[in-house]
Amino acid sequence: MIKIVLDCLGGDGGTAATAGGALLALDRDPDLSLVLVGDEPEIKSVLSARPGIARRTETVHAPDVITGDDKPTDAIRLKKDSSLIKSISLLRSDDSLAGLVSTGATGAIVACATLRLGRVRGIRRPAFCPILPNMKGGIVGICDSGANMEVTPEMLLQYAVMGSMYLETVFGIDSPRAALLNVGTEEEKGDDLHREAFALLRSCPYVNFTGNMEGRELLSGRYDLAVCDGFSGNVMIKTVEGTALQLMKKIKKDIYSRGIYKFGALFMKRMFAEEKEFMNYQNYGGSVMLGIEKTVVKGHGSGDASAVARCIEQAYTMEKNAYAPKLAEVIEKIEAGAVTG
Amino acid sequence: MIKIVLDCLGGDGGTAATAGGALLALDRDPDLSLVLVGDEPEIKSVLSARPGIARRTETVHAPDVITGDDKPTDAIRLKKDSSLIKSISLLRSDDSLAGLVSTGATGAIVACATLRLGRVRGIRRPAFCPILPNMKGGIVGICDSGANMEVTPEMLLQYAVMGSMYLETVFGIDSPRAALLNVGTEEEKGDDLHREAFALLRSCPYVNFTGNMEGRELLSGRYDLAVCDGFSGNVMIKTVEGTALQLMKKIKKDIYSRGIYKFGALFMKRMFAEEKEFMNYQNYGGSVMLGIEKTVVKGHGSGDASAVARCIEQAYTMEKNAYAPKLAEVIEKIEAGAVTG
Repeated sequence: MIKIVLDCLGGDGGTAATAGGALLALDRDPDLSLVLVGDEPEIKSVLSARPGIARRTETVHAPDVITGDDKPTDAIRLKKDSSLIKSISLLRSDDSLAGLVSTGATGAIVACATLRLGRVRGIRRPAFCPILPNMKGGIVGICDSGANMEVTPEMLLQYAVMGSMYLETVFGIDSPRAALLNVGTEEEKGDDLHREAFALLRSCPYVNFTGNMEGRELLSGRYDLAVCDGFSGNVMIKTVEGTALQLMKKIKKDIYSRGIYKFGALFMKRMFAEEKEFMNYQNYGGSVMLGIEKTVVKGHGSGDASAVARCIEQAYTMEKNAYAPKLAEVIEKIEAGAVTG
Repeated sequence: MIKIVLDCLGGDGGTAATAGGALLALDRDPDLSLVLVGDEPEIKSVLSARPGIARRTETVHAPDVITGDDKPTDAIRLKKDSSLIKSISLLRSDDSLAGLVSTGATGAIVACATLRLGRVRGIRRPAFCPILPNMKGGIVGICDSGANMEVTPEMLLQYAVMGSMYLETVFGIDSPRAALLNVGTEEEKGDDLHREAFALLRSCPYVNFTGNMEGRELLSGRYDLAVCDGFSGNVMIKTVEGTALQLMKKIKKDIYSRGIYKFGALFMKRMFAEEKEFMNYQNYGGSVMLGIEKTVVKGHGSGDASAVARCIEQAYTMEKNAYAPKLAEVIEKIEAGAVTG
């Protein structure tokens, strides 16, 4: 039985989305059990719809919420009864709990997980690795997308290792093609940080390093993993989302500007609906915080029940495939190589 | 008469595009004259089509080209007969020359301009400021998009001043809304660099600072100028280009996947052509290197004659509206304020 904690508050959809997602996930994975933390009466009311699978749940009452308006460090100190703090405390104190899924405020999750949970042995800093669809029907991971702003070449190497192993473990991508996000593809591009990271990546046997990449190639399907510092990774992923959204909005507006376009679009309704679905990032799961001993998955705040279920499944798969212990092993080998080699 | 140097080699379209662009620009601005540097016989052959306006041109023979494959610093030393090096030498030695337009290799242009041309008094580092269309029918500038990778808070402040004055001078945008590219909109977001830059920007009377912005808002029309370090600015602009291109490619492919979509698209041909034109960055001019005493405009390598003409016009407008001396004045006032205030 794999047991995961679900923070039921903090997302836009409230308990309906989170506890609803719990039911979907429990339905799918018979050896999954969940601890739901939040507004207990509300949680129980949602779970009562499926008493059979609800037997594999426990609930913990923690009705307070940390929002995006709270300063993360203050929130950790002051909101001890919040669902997130209680979830993290449970995870920390109970060895039988494998991971956490939360749709709450990113800053608080990062701060809490970094400060209160242990890192995988040898990992310098945890990193986020969200997933986007690419134009060839596959996916691309971005590691780090915002957990750390200031990095070293060694941290970028670890991001590449963590991200590659994640894509293998959860998405079954064999030997993921990793590239270093840079301002050009040539080896000598960028600043010292990137040139040093390039050298480390090239000589690492645990990364299928394909060289530098530019932001314009992110969705092309040429790479499985973009390795980057949290600042530019965050800029890149938000720029993708914004550009896609704005462009589809513009096309929609333009369609409505002339009768003949509106007429033509009648025949393409299904296609446009599919494009929208294609770009709905919720379909690609949450953003996993890699490098933490216990899996932490940050779901989108606007996620519905099926998006939450997908996040639970990510945490479940990582535990089932022993992501953290395997990562510790590889990191140990790399560190040993760096010392002896 | 405003006299500008045109580097005729280095772009994909060769002399036909550059000298062709020269003719278009000369036709539009009667008090413009040009020095065309490159393959003299080729240039003369293009110019011979319009002997009347070609009277306002001079030509300089420099048939060698610096390509993207040349290492910029080596190229400067070794390719003394290249059109770019000759152009820069002319600009440096002749006070009557106001600026340079080149569609050549970016790295070489940056290196050459930075090393050989004087900076505007008080400016720490020059910056690129390309222009993108926004979804409200306006434009947005990005400063810096890749001239410098490592910045200080003071440099980010200067980028904001340079970019704002550029949008006012060339595009007539009154008091441009400038925002600092960051990982979130809240004041305390990002690293120390961004928090310090935020404080400087907020207290500067020469910038209409509206706070932090995320990459997802770049095209929304809420901001006129994104202020950023060259690394993340470069990542952002290339990600916009890549996402827009990949998405339109996907839509096109999807249209061809079913007969009914193809039929519907027949009525929307003009709309799709307009979307394509809207996203054609060549329509928005070249990327100006701000902070150099003489204007340097980098045109897209794939630019045709009308794109080159637009770049020439940008250099012409900056000179006509005395961009550089006005910038020097403002920078002086800011530095004085920083010392006395």
